Amino acid sequence: MSKYDIIVLGSGPGGYVTAIRASQLGFKTAIVEKENLGGVCLNWGCIPTKALLKSAQVFEYLKHAEDYGLKVKDAAHDFDAVVNRSRGVADGMSKGVQFLMKKNKIDVIDGYGKIKPGKKVDVDGKEYSADNIIIATGARSRELPSLPQDGEKVIGYRQAMSLKKQPKKMIVVGSGAIGVEFAYFYNSMGTDVTIVEYLPNIVPVEDEDVSKQLERSFKKSGINIMTSAEVTKVDTSGKGVKATVKTSKGEEVLEADIILSAVGIKTNIENIGLEDVGIVVDRDKIIVNDFYQTNIPGYYAIGDVTPGPALAHVASAEGILCVEKLAGMHVEAIDYGNIPGCTYCTPEIASVGLTEKQAKDKGLDIKVGKFPFSASGKASAGGNKEGFVKVIFDAKYGEWLGCHMIGAGVTDMIAEAVLGRKLETTGHEVLKAIHPHPTMSEAVMEAVAAAYDEVIHI
Amino acid sequence: MSKYDIIVLGSGPGGYVTAIRASQLGFKTAIVEKENLGGVCLNWGCIPTKALLKSAQVFEYLKHAEDYGLKVKDAAHDFDAVVNRSRGVADGMSKGVQFLMKKNKIDVIDGYGKIKPGKKVDVDGKEYSADNIIIATGARSRELPSLPQDGEKVIGYRQAMSLKKQPKKMIVVGSGAIGVEFAYFYNSMGTDVTIVEYLPNIVPVEDEDVSKQLERSFKKSGINIMTSAEVTKVDTSGKGVKATVKTSKGEEVLEADIILSAVGIKTNIENIGLEDVGIVVDRDKIIVNDFYQTNIPGYYAIGDVTPGPALAHVASAEGILCVEKLAGMHVEAIDYGNIPGCTYCTPEIASVGLTEKQAKDKGLDIKVGKFPFSASGKASAGGNKEGFVKVIFDAKYGEWLGCHMIGAGVTDMIAEAVLGRKLETTGHEVLKAIHPHPTMSEAVMEAVAAAYDEVIHI
Repeated sequence: MSKYDIIVLGSGPGGYVTAIRASQLGFKTAIVEKENLGGVCLNWGCIPTKALLKSAQVFEYLKHAEDYGLKVKDAAHDFDAVVNRSRGVADGMSKGVQFLMKKNKIDVIDGYGKIKPGKKVDVDGKEYSADNIIIATGARSRELPSLPQDGEKVIGYRQAMSLKKQPKKMIVVGSGAIGVEFAYFYNSMGTDVTIVEYLPNIVPVEDEDVSKQLERSFKKSGINIMTSAEVTKVDTSGKGVKATVKTSKGEEVLEADIILSAVGIKTNIENIGLEDVGIVVDRDKIIVNDFYQTNIPGYYAIGDVTPGPALAHVASAEGILCVEKLAGMHVEAIDYGNIPGCTYCTPEIASVGLTEKQAKDKGLDIKVGKFPFSASGKASAGGNKEGFVKVIFDAKYGEWLGCHMIGAGVTDMIAEAVLGRKLETTGHEVLKAIHPHPTMSEAVMEAVAAAYDEVIHI
Repeated sequence: MSKYDIIVLGSGPGGYVTAIRASQLGFKTAIVEKENLGGVCLNWGCIPTKALLKSAQVFEYLKHAEDYGLKVKDAAHDFDAVVNRSRGVADGMSKGVQFLMKKNKIDVIDGYGKIKPGKKVDVDGKEYSADNIIIATGARSRELPSLPQDGEKVIGYRQAMSLKKQPKKMIVVGSGAIGVEFAYFYNSMGTDVTIVEYLPNIVPVEDEDVSKQLERSFKKSGINIMTSAEVTKVDTSGKGVKATVKTSKGEEVLEADIILSAVGIKTNIENIGLEDVGIVVDRDKIIVNDFYQTNIPGYYAIGDVTPGPALAHVASAEGILCVEKLAGMHVEAIDYGNIPGCTYCTPEIASVGLTEKQAKDKGLDIKVGKFPFSASGKASAGGNKEGFVKVIFDAKYGEWLGCHMIGAGVTDMIAEAVLGRKLETTGHEVLKAIHPHPTMSEAVMEAVAAAYDEVIHI
């Protein structure tokens, strides 16, 4: 029986990053993966979707070439080629993780891992033991009882990124990041897309102003949006699929080729031995302390299987922290109030901290500043005038409570807010940090200025 | 004679921003402009060049559509339309400044302003007085004696952005931001471009690794580069222009349609009354203190006419600080060690702080980390694998000495480093600020990790 210091279960962005950091810290490490290294993120999530979205973005340029003084004839996409490019990127990244495993001398154990009592892991009948076992088995697409996925007409994100044929009509149920990214992609490719969202706003976790802006942008680009709407019944018996959608106005039947169910995720905690070991689970999540220890000594869990936002960067950060703690390093618990979230449709969305509503609901006295990209020189030059940066400060203490962005390139701009908030910046310091001109990032500085009635360009 | 609290001479990004902030602070303000509101930056610099570069960037997508699974026929540019788009963006921005002047109740005085003793300004014969006069007359293209500009065959940036006809062959002398931006633009449009740089590296103010990367990228895209090379003679007598270029290998004569001289700037300090008032000038710059006072009470100077980097964002920041000090606010002098610089060719360049060589020349013990975009998932998905982020830390105190980026979108990413450095971050804090996945901004976190031997993805 092979013995390790650490065995990691699952090789997504939680697991493989944990394994690398563990190895760096001197632990003899193995990682168990039943499918492809890199997990959902690399193979069926973050990365391949970004590749699809890049093709869509470039396709938009082709369609609007004239706006830039350019000419093309017969701009078209080759749907297969678009999907193949995306698959190629995913494969390349997965091979990259393979390389990293080798470079860091991490044993990759192929197969389905199950934890066992006595700090053992069973992989398809073969047993391994470790001083510490880290569960990072992630999550999958959640299924609604009213919307069972058949993988053909009612699909999840996995099928949505590798369809053999582009659907003519598509219903996207749920408008979180996954839903709106696919809605944007398929609409851009020429599919007739309808979003059905249960809550009153699309991208419902975002600040309401962001939701409203995205709704305007999406409607302008031809996406149909139904909010406060629920799919109550699905009929796949005919050629396509019929969805009964209930709104305040009554019921309506929509027809489409395909329904994409993007209503959240379900953790992969079944049949991995949690019960055998006695690990406590609460409402689909493994309960852990600040350093990702479960209730059973020697067993840890990180990433989507634990409470907190189910995001790749959170999983990675949790895994790193977990093994740094195991190595005896002085570490600080993650501040879950300072986790950025990004959505990569056009316009992009990025945010961190409290929304205006959340801040008000907490009874905080706030200062709010907003700067529209329509007033930005760089945005004008780039043809990216849609969107804004909105910032929220505590009026009394000057704390940067939240930052909400929608527009071109904002997913690369939110890091400034994350670092600034981590360093407990005040608005004044952001204002006096000289942002280069002309950039979209000036909008952050200007939004802060707006919060303090010092804005220059509006 | 009209009397103001503040008169600003020149309405570039120094002048007009100063005037707005002055008005916000309750000063009765006027601004004098001889040409278009917005100065060089808005009309002939930052903004219209970014519009041209955007067209070039989109044109590159058209040319490489197949890489993204897309198809086009006959991708072409309409050079006039590209230039007209750029002029349109500039006009729009200038009108925007007009609106801002009106909104902020700033009197715009059209004409050529000259300062006079007794805190007066003469504008084409009409006299105005003010308690404080702020000189923000900016700069223009510098002319080398060996390279006199005739505006036809030997041109400066102004002509370069509004040529009636696209040149077939172009020599760009000087490879600072202006030179390489035009080199990229014209090369992308199909012009045969040669860069002649006097120093051993192109973009010579940047970290050497950045210069080398840009040289590789430019050569790959077909731009000819001659470094340690000097134009010693120009002959415009024939149909085109002949330039004698001296290198270590001897002399060579290059032929072209047009030479763009991009060898720096010359301040606009002649014939604006400095001598009459007795304002001290040293080597082309007006000498000022930390709060932009000249040696004569009541006269101030900001922006390109003063020492320090000749950048729009610096001019704006100086002007704001100048009037805030006048308003009696508690202000801190600008830290000129924390000014970002950006270059918007493809790949983009952005940097702040010390280069590796500068840090070593100072005798500092440093830690250097570098993360290539080739190892970034987002870069792979976006087809943007060129470039890297390089960070430099003080080994002893952990101070973030410098950050140097080259790649897609980095001009919007440098703000994180500027704010982090302003807040005196350590590398550890940058590392533990959770950057969203998948973004290009993760490369900053990873470069810092590399500096401390904790990098995950390489």
